[in-house]
Amino acid sequence: MPLMAPSPFAAMDCSIARTLDVVGERWTMLILRDAFYGIRRFDDFQRNLGIARNVLADRLAKLVDRGVLRKEQYEERPPRHEYRLTEKGRDLFRVLLAMAHWGDRWESEGDPLVTVTHHDCGEQIDVQPACSHCGGTLTPWNVTVEPMPVGV
Amino acid sequence: MPLMAPSPFAAMDCSIARTLDVVGERWTMLILRDAFYGIRRFDDFQRNLGIARNVLADRLAKLVDRGVLRKEQYEERPPRHEYRLTEKGRDLFRVLLAMAHWGDRWESEGDPLVTVTHHDCGEQIDVQPACSHCGGTLTPWNVTVEPMPVGV
Repeated sequence: MPLMAPSPFAAMDCSIARTLDVVGERWTMLILRDAFYGIRRFDDFQRNLGIARNVLADRLAKLVDRGVLRKEQYEERPPRHEYRLTEKGRDLFRVLLAMAHWGDRWESEGDPLVTVTHHDCGEQIDVQPACSHCGGTLTPWNVTVEPMPVGV
Repeated sequence: MPLMAPSPFAAMDCSIARTLDVVGERWTMLILRDAFYGIRRFDDFQRNLGIARNVLADRLAKLVDRGVLRKEQYEERPPRHEYRLTEKGRDLFRVLLAMAHWGDRWESEGDPLVTVTHHDCGEQIDVQPACSHCGGTLTPWNVTVEPMPVGV
């Protein structure tokens, strides 16, 4: 059952490893989850997560540096800032949705914690990874992930 | 732009946090990536990742303990084991696919690192999170993630 093709990638140089370089840390993902819930201000992140202030400052600075959040001044005197998701940050929605699905299925002891509602059809739904070409559901058995040929 | 509904969750008790409890660590996700590529043996994980043996042993033991991998003896004398993905582990495919997509889009400096081929349609594709009911593509703007009503 080779789920993906054997990989000639250098172990640390694949798209998954690069994603983990940016968000592969528990607090970072929880900060982003809160950002998707609409939290923007340092004190609100701090209060909701119960995270040490220096750790939060470090993680927010890294996310700004990597272009996932942007820091915007919303008050001049005293100067106050908030943190907003960039387009790159909003695109992490798919990663968080996939994590929410998995946690709900496998770590909720049979009691799902969340519902996902899709406004376009109005239903409470499940999230499926789908093919951009034919719309079919993707599984480990019908997908091959391979390195890009050199020069393409 | 409230992307999800404001959350009355206790900060640490949501499905995303529970997923991060199991796989929210860089080495853990890279071990799982390698498992999807077909790697099963301690020495092969070690060689491919360049990870310290004690760290690898710790992460593998945790993944077995949480039911993501199972340890199977494949040789009696000397006793040798391999690590295989369980159903719970294989379901993390959606999380890894979402990470691969994001890393390829945002962290590859314009040079995508991987191609994803969908065997059912034969095309090189992109991965989209889709609605299980209507098949529509899910975005931060057409989805609400909410806590399950108590007692449901």
